[in-house]
Amino acid sequence: MVKLDFLYEGKAKLVYSTENKDLVIVHYMDDAIAFNGIKKAKIQNKGVINNKITSIIFEHLKKHDIPTYYVETLNDREQICLNVERLKLEMICRNYCAGSMAKRLGIKEGFKPDNIIYELCYKNEELGDPIINEHHAVALGLATYSELREIFDYTVKINEVLKEFFSSKGILLIDFKIEFGRTKDGRLVLVDEISPDTCRLWDRETLRILDKDRFRRDMGDVTGSYQEILERISK
Amino acid sequence: MVKLDFLYEGKAKLVYSTENKDLVIVHYMDDAIAFNGIKKAKIQNKGVINNKITSIIFEHLKKHDIPTYYVETLNDREQICLNVERLKLEMICRNYCAGSMAKRLGIKEGFKPDNIIYELCYKNEELGDPIINEHHAVALGLATYSELREIFDYTVKINEVLKEFFSSKGILLIDFKIEFGRTKDGRLVLVDEISPDTCRLWDRETLRILDKDRFRRDMGDVTGSYQEILERISK
Repeated sequence: MVKLDFLYEGKAKLVYSTENKDLVIVHYMDDAIAFNGIKKAKIQNKGVINNKITSIIFEHLKKHDIPTYYVETLNDREQICLNVERLKLEMICRNYCAGSMAKRLGIKEGFKPDNIIYELCYKNEELGDPIINEHHAVALGLATYSELREIFDYTVKINEVLKEFFSSKGILLIDFKIEFGRTKDGRLVLVDEISPDTCRLWDRETLRILDKDRFRRDMGDVTGSYQEILERISK
Repeated sequence: MVKLDFLYEGKAKLVYSTENKDLVIVHYMDDAIAFNGIKKAKIQNKGVINNKITSIIFEHLKKHDIPTYYVETLNDREQICLNVERLKLEMICRNYCAGSMAKRLGIKEGFKPDNIIYELCYKNEELGDPIINEHHAVALGLATYSELREIFDYTVKINEVLKEFFSSKGILLIDFKIEFGRTKDGRLVLVDEISPDTCRLWDRETLRILDKDRFRRDMGDVTGSYQEILERISK
């Protein structure tokens, strides 16, 4: 499979068309962007590591009947994926309170509420990816109420599967962000990536941060932590 | 009924205890506050007008089986109300897009989506009354999922009743904010006020703004517009 035209760019990925119009090639870069574009850097080898982590996790989710756009890993930095229409939505799922939400609502980082917090954001960089709810999403034409219920149900299941998966590797899943797309026949599938760029992952024993917060907060050893996640979940 | 101790202050109201511990006296002031406290002024006679408007609307809602904390109007500026525990929540209901939401989500003011938009905010001045959803509300201990469903159902009904009521007076109900409280026996009731301070109300024919936006946007004739609302709904 060969890359044809460049289609679009994500925060850390490039997407290309292929000779098969139903498939795209997703290329993982080393770029890191935080705080809505204010902080930018390259993290050595991140693209290679995140491609591998996402491939392992998407294969694992597939076994648990979660539909994804992932088809197969092509090489160190590239995957073949379904060519889907991406929804301009981010779904965030939080088992513990951390990051911008904790700050915004005056909650102590690391607090574990009795319930799981689900949050929708409008994927719109110009507006700063604002938080919305299902009513805004429908009014903005981003998805139907029925699609949003399906996305919510998938997210509940993905969280259960991922919590268990990471827990078996000695890792706490604090929170994660996922995105969805619509296939040509209208099915919803998980898209984008699941990696330390999109999850908060803490060592279960030491509570050491092993994710993108090491970059956001200048904690150092970003590549090492990402590599550690990869090694643990590869076992 | 006589005012005893001062209990707490809202944006434009003072609340006092009475000799009956189940009842409070709510006093309507002329103060107007906008943009989370940045803009402040007194609007002549607003307290008297809003006390009358809220009394009429709460009586109307009572006829439609919406439970409220309103008992009776005591005088020009005061009501007797139930002494309830107020939830630190604001429920916003939007039939048309306007104000901060329109700006935040890049929607043109006056746009009417096919669906009705419901929004929850965390009533916390220090944090700027941030937008939340039901999961945040539960995690923050503000209400249970079951109470939030009840609040949502009441809001749907209140919107239907108010839209019809204002429409019969030649007024478009653009959006409104309501609050709820818990009685001593755990029932949810509508609290606070429903007035041009808490609703966006436009003349149906001319689309003239008749609400607090006249104050927020320095459009002048604030008292006159509030008085016009009172006159129209008194008929």
